[in-house]
Formats: sequence, structure tokens, C-alpha cells
Amino acid sequence: MSITGKLYINGEWVTGKGSSYQAINPAKGEAIEPPMSAANASQVEVALQAAAEAFVSFNQTSPEVRARFLRDCADEIMNLGDELLERVTLETGYPRPRAEGERARTCFQLRMFADHVESADFYDARIDTAIPTRTPPKPDVRFMNQGIGPVVVFGASNFPMAFSVAGGDTAAALAAGCPVLVKGHSSHPGTCELVAQAIAKAVEKNQLAAGTFSLIMGSGADVGSKMVLSPVVKAVGFTGSFTGGMALVKLANDREEPIPVFAEMGSVNPIVFLPDALKNSAPAIATGYVGSLTLGTGQFCVNPGLALAIEGPELTQFISELKTAVGQVPAGVMLNKRICGSYGESVEKYLAYDGVELIASGHETTGTEGFRAQATIMSVTGETFLANTHIHEEIFGPAALLIKCKNKTQLLQILDQLKGQLTGTIHCTDDELITHQDIAEKLRIKVGRLVINQFPTGVEVCPSMVHGGPFPAASDSRFTAVGTASIHRFLRPVCYQNYPEKLLPAVLHNTNSFNALRTINGIKTRDSL
Amino acid sequence: MSITGKLYINGEWVTGKGSSYQAINPAKGEAIEPPMSAANASQVEVALQAAAEAFVSFNQTSPEVRARFLRDCADEIMNLGDELLERVTLETGYPRPRAEGERARTCFQLRMFADHVESADFYDARIDTAIPTRTPPKPDVRFMNQGIGPVVVFGASNFPMAFSVAGGDTAAALAAGCPVLVKGHSSHPGTCELVAQAIAKAVEKNQLAAGTFSLIMGSGADVGSKMVLSPVVKAVGFTGSFTGGMALVKLANDREEPIPVFAEMGSVNPIVFLPDALKNSAPAIATGYVGSLTLGTGQFCVNPGLALAIEGPELTQFISELKTAVGQVPAGVMLNKRICGSYGESVEKYLAYDGVELIASGHETTGTEGFRAQATIMSVTGETFLANTHIHEEIFGPAALLIKCKNKTQLLQILDQLKGQLTGTIHCTDDELITHQDIAEKLRIKVGRLVINQFPTGVEVCPSMVHGGPFPAASDSRFTAVGTASIHRFLRPVCYQNYPEKLLPAVLHNTNSFNALRTINGIKTRDSL
Repeated sequence: MSITGKLYINGEWVTGKGSSYQAINPAKGEAIEPPMSAANASQVEVALQAAAEAFVSFNQTSPEVRARFLRDCADEIMNLGDELLERVTLETGYPRPRAEGERARTCFQLRMFADHVESADFYDARIDTAIPTRTPPKPDVRFMNQGIGPVVVFGASNFPMAFSVAGGDTAAALAAGCPVLVKGHSSHPGTCELVAQAIAKAVEKNQLAAGTFSLIMGSGADVGSKMVLSPVVKAVGFTGSFTGGMALVKLANDREEPIPVFAEMGSVNPIVFLPDALKNSAPAIATGYVGSLTLGTGQFCVNPGLALAIEGPELTQFISELKTAVGQVPAGVMLNKRICGSYGESVEKYLAYDGVELIASGHETTGTEGFRAQATIMSVTGETFLANTHIHEEIFGPAALLIKCKNKTQLLQILDQLKGQLTGTIHCTDDELITHQDIAEKLRIKVGRLVINQFPTGVEVCPSMVHGGPFPAASDSRFTAVGTASIHRFLRPVCYQNYPEKLLPAVLHNTNSFNALRTINGIKTRDSL
Repeated sequence: MSITGKLYINGEWVTGKGSSYQAINPAKGEAIEPPMSAANASQVEVALQAAAEAFVSFNQTSPEVRARFLRDCADEIMNLGDELLERVTLETGYPRPRAEGERARTCFQLRMFADHVESADFYDARIDTAIPTRTPPKPDVRFMNQGIGPVVVFGASNFPMAFSVAGGDTAAALAAGCPVLVKGHSSHPGTCELVAQAIAKAVEKNQLAAGTFSLIMGSGADVGSKMVLSPVVKAVGFTGSFTGGMALVKLANDREEPIPVFAEMGSVNPIVFLPDALKNSAPAIATGYVGSLTLGTGQFCVNPGLALAIEGPELTQFISELKTAVGQVPAGVMLNKRICGSYGESVEKYLAYDGVELIASGHETTGTEGFRAQATIMSVTGETFLANTHIHEEIFGPAALLIKCKNKTQLLQILDQLKGQLTGTIHCTDDELITHQDIAEKLRIKVGRLVINQFPTGVEVCPSMVHGGPFPAASDSRFTAVGTASIHRFLRPVCYQNYPEKLLPAVLHNTNSFNALRTINGIKTRDSL
């Protein structure tokens, strides 16, 4: 099956009755075949009703069924072979190794959730047994997590697979037993369709309800807003800009029945360079930093766009190393015209502020077609930064603002002023970290992930990962978008009191057939009752 | 220390600079000595700043310290002895056994959280070890839950201890390592002060930061709103009315930095009576139901105010039993004038609707002083109920509306129309539950707790309890207000990447000194690394 421009709604591939459009190759600025179609409101409604219906059965599928389904999704994505990788490259401008790496990550996420579901740990099953002789009698109460209901996932532009149709949000929601309606990103509609074809095959293979998964393309009130406002939908996952995320949060809050939106909205990801670390290894740190800053043309939520260091000879040396390193970085392709234009404007705006100075730009390459951007490193004094909140915002792309702090007190003062962040990083010697625990402490309470002597890009998919953080990095700091804990965005607890055992969900039976870790009368155990 | 009318702010007992007022004895309608004081805005600000400061140290206290503190809170509450029980009775009109029972529950909750903190399970500690030889190298990543920040707790009128100053929200937030600012309820200010004295002693005994706990009394923009809007505050716990809860949710959402509000806002708690159960034991079910409905003069969030049954001879018999049972219930004291007035108005309004009929009222007692209310059971046909959403709302107090459904189809249709509920209950024979799994299913997706052949009042405090549910029963169905899982309202995950082991929080060290259940490279274990 090749790319047809169709949508996947209620188990069928249909041409969208909304507008028609084409994907754009950002490396060339040219339209890509074939024409793609957007949904209209009535098609969205069909998908919503199908999801509501699918919830009834899918929510009650066994861990085994859901795990097999998730693994089939991963297998079918791999079966798309070169066609997928080529389309990703064409639609994003990412080099082939990035496409391969992201595909691997996407499949890994699906398989990680398959394992996680199979372990039955996500149920957090709890049993408190009755004590009829107590005054008052103690009832039998049993607790388990269940899927919250149909989930809408908004794909991100910068991860055409890992945060898109079959990305982390989708994997977590399906693992939780929630049907998923994906609003695909218009920057990579062909990639969306191919991946949806893979999921559709897995849905059919496992004979799941047709509305278990839908792919919707389009924009505006007929599509995204309509989905978020539908009474059928019980949660939303979003990765993207602050403006986009907050628009969804507001929509969801204003519903008659408000629903949770987990929006991961990016941040400036402060990175602190302490003097001894710079003294010991300025060239290596500069090379590493510029590599992290310009990876994927800087189009990462965890891109370390705000650097802090204390004035002194070590910083002077570091700046000179940064100049050398960034000067070697060729201009990179950005995901689309809007992002590229916005990057250029933001850099220009920053450079126009009194006190913001250009340290260096990346070098221009011969390729000038398409949407290309040069890396940019700017500097500013701590005083100017503190006085001007306009330069505290994220520039999406390969730009950094280095703050030259007068002293440590000023550095701490600046950390105090920062909003919530996905990550915070410190480059330091072991001794410096001990001496400056106050810096680490200030960062810790602002971030989801604290990194020492590494770089925040390259989010490791593992149970320990936190990809989220205090507002505005994410809309709710209690959740993460990456790692097994991300399933909790889409689960709610339900308890059963005095319920006949044989009619309970299997994980709450006396016999622990899943070998799940359960809490029985307050004790964690894998034993049966 | 007796009741002084003072507030506890930044470790000191101070007279509020806001208005002065007196508690009212609802059984007599008379003012109670001494005069109490409300805070003004600048006093609230002092408490907020103290909480911000306390967070830094309290958030990092060991499980051992927090557990001892929580147990000391319980001990000090017991040490208040008769003075507390008498004041509770005086301020609420609750009989002495209720005061004793609620005190026991309150202390039990504090001790349950002490045990829970000590187990170190709430950290959900996770360790993924580095694989430097992998391409790309896998970093060392370690995850743990940490307190979200200072929490504001709004006490409820109907649980002067268990959902008030040292109630479930406070216990959970303190266990999570979050300083707590309690906005006490003006219906029981003396009780609030006494319990705050107990907590204050525990704070001092454990040499915790002064701002770890504050008691604020008062109302309006200077007090409650000011606390919710303060940048210092990171979460809110509330138990009370839909209107009150949603006002806080809106305030919190409209902040520059929105924060989560867990508002438990009550519900009508549908209870379904199936024919065979009624045929077998109408008298016992009627007695049990009326007992649950009128317990605490019906002033429970889980009061089963909406009954559903199918028309037939069993229902006719049941209604006759209900008449007998409710006729024996004496009028009860309600918590305050406003609640009592509102109850009377709501019942009158319901009875004025075409098609709503009075089944029976409780009997009038000689005592006519104070704020008293008679139990009321009304009935309506399924058709009328479906056509009139005005009678779907909660009446706070001992009133029930029994829906006489034409048939099962209509009963299911009514369940479909109901909003989210704290609880749903079915009285049935074993066979009926099997035959009517569709009824249980319809209820399950609407509720936090599903009860079979018991009554929803008497919320058991245990790890398996869910006290919450889909909106509008609670503002976020993913959390509970009762039970150990309620701590998750006030925790957020943080991860540390490539962090020197000796500088990590103790629970993330290689050696598992807390014997915590941790996830190491995906495997749950109590072993050290």
C-alpha cells in the first residue's frame, strides 16, 4: 500500500472531505506527491463515535492482547521498510541516519509498553480483604487503574515518528486501554499515513474494534478543536509550542466536562558551565555543546538554548572555543517554512536588543534552496538578562544565548527567575558540584531532568526518564511524556467494594494469574491471595 | 492551651487582623465563645513566604523524619482529649460517637501515611544504569517522586477533622514533603484551632521549618483566593460543593502558572435496586438504605441520593418499607444555617416539579431550635427524570429521589445520562449481577467506586480506596482524595542523569538503605544495586 492521501476512520481508508493539500520538501521548498486530504467535521464525528464504541471493548482487553497489538504495531512499522524512511527524509529534511534512529526509537517505545502492559504493573492492583467482625465491619475493597477513555494525540512537527502517529503518547494511551484519535501534523502527512497503515494492519490482525485507532488530518475548528471539545474524548496528549499547547489546555478547561491535557511545550533548558570544568576541558565541552545545540538543526524540545557561566579567563577561553566549533556547523534544513521563518525572526529580534552580542554563526553552505538556518550563539551580561524578560523565551532552532554572569550570586539570581524547564544541565568537576550544591538545588526544583556533564538532547527512553517539568515546560508537572510512567496520564483508579470475585477483572482475582505486583492488605506481593 | 481565636502563621500564634466572628452551635443556633479572628492579606503573605522557605528543607526530609512527624500529629490530636471532642460536638451538632469515630479516622490516616512514607514506596524510585559501550552510549538515569511544592488545603464543613486541618489532604501533602497552608472552615473554627495546636506541637517537636504548616481562617479575596493565586503555591486540595470547587479550579487555571486543583465536589451516588434483591429482602434493604441516607443528617459526599428501580410489585413493596423506615428517623441537626436553608429550599424545589412525589418524610421531633432537617424520600417516573435535568443535581442532606423506571432499557438510559459520580451501588442477587453486567458496566465507567450489596457511606480508609471519580464528582478522575494513592496529587517525578551517586537523594543510592521497592533496569526489586 503506497501513500494515497486518505484518512483512517472507523476502520476504513477514506478521502477527507475537507481541503486538499500537499506536503512540502523543506530541503527544496517543493511540493511532494500525492495530494493529501483533510477531514471535515462529519468525518471527525464518525471517528469520535467509533472511538467511543471501541472504548467499551478495548478498555477491557487483557494485557496479553494489548501487548501483542503493540508489538504488531512495531513490526508493521518495520515492514514499511525503505518507503517510510524515504518519506520521512523527504518530508523533514532529516538525514537518513536520523530517520533510522527515530524509527528504532518509535518501535522500541511500542515494545517497551508491550512489556510494561504484560507485567500488569500499570494496574497498580490493590486488595484489602474484608473483616466482617470489625466494628464497623471492614468491607472487601479492590483497586485497579483503568483507561480513562478515548484520547486525542496531537503529533509534533519535529519527531515525525517518535512523537507522532505511533509515538510515545499513542503507545502510552493504547497501553492504557484507551482508543486513540491522532491529529497528524501537516508537515509530514505522508509519514503519518504510512505509520497509520501499519497500526491499521495491527488493529485488523488483532480483531480490535474499528475505532481503536483513527488518523485525522486537517486543521481548525472542524478538526482539532472539534476533537478536544467532544464529550467522547477524555484526555489529550500534545507536544509542540507553548501557544499551541495552551490553546488546547484552554479549550479543554472550558468544556462542560473539563478533561486533562498533557502538553509538553518545550523550554530553554538552561546549561551551566562552571569555571573548573571549563579550565580543564573547554574545547571538548564547546564541541559537545555545539553538537547538542545544532543536532537536528536545533529542533528539539530539550535543545540547550540558554547557557550560563561566570565571567573570567575560563569563560573567555570557552567563548573562543565556541566560535571555532559553531563556525564549522553548516546551515541545516528546518522542518517547514513557518519554523524557519520564525527562527530567523527570533534571532534577529534577539540581536536587536541592546546588550545582546553575536558570538558566532555557523558557516553558510552552498545549498541555499529550501528552508535553511544557520546556528547562532549570542551573549549577554547577567544584568541585561535580568532586566529583560523578552530574551528569556525559547528560540526553536539552533540558537543559544550565553549569559555572562558577574558572579555566582548573579547566576543564582538568574536561575531563580527562570520558569519551569524540561531539563537543567551543569558542567562541573566533582568538587565543583559539591561546592555548588545550591546551583543544583535551584535547578532541581525548576526541572523534570537534571543532567551532569552530559547534554540534554538524546532523551533516553527508559523507565527512569522524565520528559516534562514544571509549567510552562509541561502543562502538569506530575506527569511525563516519555518512559513507562507516561502511561499514568491516561489511567484513572477505580475500586470495587464487596464485588463477587469471579465477576471482577482478572487482575483483582484472588489468584494472581498475571504474576502482577499487587498490594494486598498493605503489603506488596506477587503471591495469590 | 485552650481556644484563643488565633491563627498559626510562620510558627507563631497570632490574632488575625481581618474580621472577628464567632462559631455557631447548629443545635441551638447560638454563638459559641470565644471570638475567633480572620487573617488579613498581609498575614496570609507571611504564611505563604514561610511555606516557600519551609519547602526547601521539608521537601528533603527523610522518610523517617516525616513518618515521626505524622505520628506525632496523631498523638497530639489524641492528647487534646475531651476538649476536642466536645468542641466538635458543639460546632457540628454531631453526636459524640461520630466525633470519636472521626477522630479515630483522622489519626488513622496520619499513621497510615507515616507507614506509607516509611516504606519509601511513594518515591517510585527507578534506576537505569549506564551502558557506555552502547551506540549512542546509554546514560545513568535515576527517577524519584518529590513533593510538588507548598499546598493549600480547603477544609470541608462536614468532616471537621477527617477532611479539615489534619485531614486526608493535609496528611497526604505532608507525607509528600509539601508544606501545607490550611484554609479552615468557618463552621468549626474552634476545632480547627485545636487541631492546629496539635500539629504545631508536632512541628516544633520535630524542629521542622516554621512554615511547614499554617492555619489561616477567613474568607474572600484576602484569604482563599490570595493563597490559590500566590506563585508560592503549587497545588490545591479541596472538598466541598461544585460551585466552590469550580471557583478554585478556575482561579488556578487562570494563573500565569496554572496549578493543579484536586476538588472533590460530591455527587448523587446512584444506587440501583434490582427486583430479586427487593423480593428477597425489601425490609432489610430499606432499613439499610435509610440508615445510609440519613447518617450524619445526610451530610456526606457519598450520600446515596439517587435511587433507581424497575416498576413492579417488588418496588411497590420496597416503597412501603421505605415509608416505614424513613418515618422513624427523627429530624437531624445540620452543620450550619446556610446548609440547612439550602436543603429545605432544594427539597421544596424538587417537590414543586410536576411528577415529583413525596414518598415519606422523617418524623418531627420535639427539638425545634437550631438548624434541623427532616429526611425526605421522593419519587419520579423514569420518563419525567429523563426529561428534566434540573432534578439530576445533588441535594446536600438526607434527601433521596427514587426513580421508578418503566423497564431495564429505561434504567440503562438514565445511567447513560448521569454525570461522573464518586460511587455507584447495586443491590442484587448473585444471579442478577451476572444477568445485568451491563448495568454494572454502565456504572463502572461513571464512578470512582462500585459497591455491591452494601452502602457507599462509611468510606474505608485503606490502600484500595478511591474517593474521587469522573467529573464533576472530582476535578480530575486520575486521583483519589482518600487512601495511600491520594499522595500522588502532590508528587511530581524528577530524574537525575549522570549524577554522582553520593550526591543523589538517599533512595537513589546504589545501596537500598530504605528497603524500598525500586525498578532497576526495568525489574522491580528490593535489592541493592
